[in-house]
Amino acid sequence: MAEYIAPIKDMQFVLKHVVGLDQVNTLPGHEEITEDVVDAILEEASKLAHEVLSPLNITGDKNPSKWKDGVVTTPPGFKDAYWQYVNSGWGNILSPAKYGGQELPHMIATPVEEMWGSANLAFKLCPMLTQGAIEAIAHVGPDALREKFLPNMISGKWTGTMNLTEPQAGSDLSLVRTKATPQSDGTFRLKGQKIFITYGEHDYTENIIHLVLARIDGAPEGVKGISLFVVPKFNVKPDGSLGDRNDVKCVSIEHKLGIHASPTAVMAYGEKDGATGYLVGEANRGLEYMFIMMNAARLSVGLEGVAIAERAYQRALAWSRERLQGKPVGVKGATTAPIVQHPDVKRMLLTMKSITEASRALAYWTSAILDRAREHPDEEERRRSQAMVDFLIPIVKGWSTENGIDVASLGIQVHGGMGFIEETGAAQHLRDARITTIYEGTTGIQANDLVGRKIGREEGRTALVVLAEVDKVAAQLSGEGDPTLKDIGMALATAAAKARETVQWISRNFATNAPAVAAGSTYVLKLLGITFGGWMLARSAQIATKQLAAGEGDASYLKGKVLTARFFADHILSQVPALAIAATKGGESVLAVEESFL
Amino acid sequence: MAEYIAPIKDMQFVLKHVVGLDQVNTLPGHEEITEDVVDAILEEASKLAHEVLSPLNITGDKNPSKWKDGVVTTPPGFKDAYWQYVNSGWGNILSPAKYGGQELPHMIATPVEEMWGSANLAFKLCPMLTQGAIEAIAHVGPDALREKFLPNMISGKWTGTMNLTEPQAGSDLSLVRTKATPQSDGTFRLKGQKIFITYGEHDYTENIIHLVLARIDGAPEGVKGISLFVVPKFNVKPDGSLGDRNDVKCVSIEHKLGIHASPTAVMAYGEKDGATGYLVGEANRGLEYMFIMMNAARLSVGLEGVAIAERAYQRALAWSRERLQGKPVGVKGATTAPIVQHPDVKRMLLTMKSITEASRALAYWTSAILDRAREHPDEEERRRSQAMVDFLIPIVKGWSTENGIDVASLGIQVHGGMGFIEETGAAQHLRDARITTIYEGTTGIQANDLVGRKIGREEGRTALVVLAEVDKVAAQLSGEGDPTLKDIGMALATAAAKARETVQWISRNFATNAPAVAAGSTYVLKLLGITFGGWMLARSAQIATKQLAAGEGDASYLKGKVLTARFFADHILSQVPALAIAATKGGESVLAVEESFL
Repeated sequence: MAEYIAPIKDMQFVLKHVVGLDQVNTLPGHEEITEDVVDAILEEASKLAHEVLSPLNITGDKNPSKWKDGVVTTPPGFKDAYWQYVNSGWGNILSPAKYGGQELPHMIATPVEEMWGSANLAFKLCPMLTQGAIEAIAHVGPDALREKFLPNMISGKWTGTMNLTEPQAGSDLSLVRTKATPQSDGTFRLKGQKIFITYGEHDYTENIIHLVLARIDGAPEGVKGISLFVVPKFNVKPDGSLGDRNDVKCVSIEHKLGIHASPTAVMAYGEKDGATGYLVGEANRGLEYMFIMMNAARLSVGLEGVAIAERAYQRALAWSRERLQGKPVGVKGATTAPIVQHPDVKRMLLTMKSITEASRALAYWTSAILDRAREHPDEEERRRSQAMVDFLIPIVKGWSTENGIDVASLGIQVHGGMGFIEETGAAQHLRDARITTIYEGTTGIQANDLVGRKIGREEGRTALVVLAEVDKVAAQLSGEGDPTLKDIGMALATAAAKARETVQWISRNFATNAPAVAAGSTYVLKLLGITFGGWMLARSAQIATKQLAAGEGDASYLKGKVLTARFFADHILSQVPALAIAATKGGESVLAVEESFL
Repeated sequence: MAEYIAPIKDMQFVLKHVVGLDQVNTLPGHEEITEDVVDAILEEASKLAHEVLSPLNITGDKNPSKWKDGVVTTPPGFKDAYWQYVNSGWGNILSPAKYGGQELPHMIATPVEEMWGSANLAFKLCPMLTQGAIEAIAHVGPDALREKFLPNMISGKWTGTMNLTEPQAGSDLSLVRTKATPQSDGTFRLKGQKIFITYGEHDYTENIIHLVLARIDGAPEGVKGISLFVVPKFNVKPDGSLGDRNDVKCVSIEHKLGIHASPTAVMAYGEKDGATGYLVGEANRGLEYMFIMMNAARLSVGLEGVAIAERAYQRALAWSRERLQGKPVGVKGATTAPIVQHPDVKRMLLTMKSITEASRALAYWTSAILDRAREHPDEEERRRSQAMVDFLIPIVKGWSTENGIDVASLGIQVHGGMGFIEETGAAQHLRDARITTIYEGTTGIQANDLVGRKIGREEGRTALVVLAEVDKVAAQLSGEGDPTLKDIGMALATAAAKARETVQWISRNFATNAPAVAAGSTYVLKLLGITFGGWMLARSAQIATKQLAAGEGDASYLKGKVLTARFFADHILSQVPALAIAATKGGESVLAVEESFL
């Protein structure tokens, strides 16, 4: 197994049957999203992923982006791949039609984005960051900025970046110090240093459009004094052509555990007279604007967890079918067999498969709700969907990325000693995956957001709505005559009950004992991820059983789907009660420990 | 935090109070192992670890061992460190006195070995492999080989290696193909290729003594036709001086995820006329001889898990005390604080600390029983102890190494974005740790050994004996007035009950449904590791509480010990019931899946 092959069958099943295309093709402007259109999009994207991006994945790992005198050279083949990607029209699928984009629904962009992440995570980050910058400018404006920058960013001629972090301000943006001084012409001069800037400098395009958080002179301390600016690498003349180099440069790039092809830049703004910047929206509302985009960005990173998991699974499965070692336990007269036949290896593969498919379905479902939150004609439905997305995003981000790491690590384990040898390729997936639980907000930050803003402050209202849906499926399956479905239903019902108790416990304790809730928050995130992932797989099993009975679809795929759901029920859903104990009772045993005891 | 500082306080507490020095200093020949002697040994070892080995850890990572034309050059400083290690007398602490060794008990060598692993895992592998080779030759003989090779191996003048793996024979040694042809002078000529040979070639010493598994011409197929040979890099003349170069060479070394300083060699035997080899013990008993050493080697690797976990914890704790980000949840008027004060960060640190300390105590306890198994004057006690060691070793190996990976990964997470930057040093620990669940038998192989040879075949006899000891402690603590101890006792009782049910289930099902038992075996290993680790921490809490009441010891350390045990009870022991479900019920859902569904 060398190259990635998109799991189109599973993607189609989830989109068409588990989520339902009607979630989005009933929204105004998306009526054209028929099954055939979806199939064609997936097919085309899978070709680029397989033929162009996947072969460059190891190339990029072995030949990290290089910095010399402020200039960054990306690995061989990456620039060409970028232009193939852009020229095939993939760079603008989510962008506003007004400036040249295709405005596809997120639900459809999501599997496509998963493919890029599986094929080449380090490559994928450039378009992802550009998309975030496009959204910020498109959403907030003003029009002058939109017109000046969006067409070239959407066409892929220029890329975009997000500049939040500074050495002293990582997760805590209240500590941002970069300064912006107003000029008489309405622009600003920025001075400061930004770190961890993904694709802050590169050689794909002639210009790079930086979105930068900074404080206008005299602005309040803390998060309420932060504004958002556009700072182009090259100033843009009124006619749209490139002018002078702006006073911003890349002073170094990082030597990282993974995603070697993606340059992580240290950016210096205003080492001379100050970098020319343009205010996005209103002063002091920068953080708010960043958070508007944050949902989509966090969903994207969650999807990276799914993507890496899928790639690691494909590689491990292929190896397990080739590698001959040992005789299967309990088989009389067995001869040396492929390791896939050993029960413990099969268990690892099923862990990888079931977690990947559960995370995928949950991410796609969430992206469909994101479309409804943004585009449903009914305001109340938009509000309801937005609350749901806000609740689900930290779960998708946190759970899927932790899963990506676990699955990639299992992928190494399946390979045995060969997994530790870099040439095999399995180790790269773990190294690449390891950043996903950190950037765009660590798992701990997702978990705190979840138990605080998304559960505690609304007394678990949205969580309980989703859990009621889970209960419905659990009840349907628990009443089935089919013993496999019944088993899945019972396991799901137990998990949902424990999840509900946990949510209720948070609602009771959030106001009075926030530290204890925070101390258990990561477990809450995990148990909700597992419960909702289990719900997605339970629905999948329900649908697959119906299709099998009706003689529809691919029987092997569908039987696998049912048994994967059962595996997940026994092996993963069963963890929820323990997580509930740790989430609710465990906080006290964290808080009891004084810092000096550590 | 740059350099490793040995956790001497915890090591002393475990040795003196949890395991008890009387476990070994009542054995013949070990009467001199008093508390003072132990303190002096730990103190001296910690200096070498801190001052010499630890500073080279990152050096070795950045400057991997290099191969050129068959010659391997280790990273700068490693050869000097080797000679400091040898000249300070650390190379021979376990070796037989007859050939110049110190014959210290394993229980004392174990914390010392942990220090080497924490300070510099890649360095530590060379003495560890040498020790294994020494043990094989010392144990099996014949005397001519002992006299020819042992004095120089024990003095550290020559090192040793273990050559098992071949490209087609990894975990399955029945597939070994290397050939050994008898010569008229009683020697053999070996031909074949061995891979993954740790320190198969290096520049520390003038000679390298390879132990090699091979098949004598005409030997039976499978594991019963494998013999063990000594093959020196340079032939040794009758007077002990070096003769000709033997027909063995290192044809390449691997590019690995971690332990970069440790050369992992591909060895070619007999490319010319055949490499001269000397038969160890009797023909066709090679695998049996390897397994004699395997217990000690697997205990050593288990200890590597503890070692890496300790180092990762130290680094993360230091960072968490320095790094200022955010205001602690629920604290009125809080200002920006070190991240150690955030409940989720403290939870991660306590997870790291509690797992590390639990694994450490279990490993030390096991090493004390290994001493009793080898040296107790009473044959029945030796037999009982051997059964106990045989049962515990796969748990220590499998559980501690999986813990090492988890803890190292949490260490990155505590660092946030800085954890992903290689210069920080946190990432190296994960990369280094990742091999430990693979070499000397993967976790799956440990788990199969555990449920098969160590539980199934003896109907869980030894397991139930250990669990009865766990129950005693659980009952004592559950009856305590002190609510913390009571909590710990109750959690331990629940875990032990589930562990017993699981052992009994294995006993009932092993003969009739071995594949289902195998499919759940990794969970069995984990739940027994957690239960026994929890037992060790519960005993620690019990002892610490007594010492606190008596006004003995370091109050801060002892209070921390009690609360660490409570944390482990709520957060880790609570996982046992779910693992028991997966172990017993989960096998069927693995076996139900046909290979084509994957």
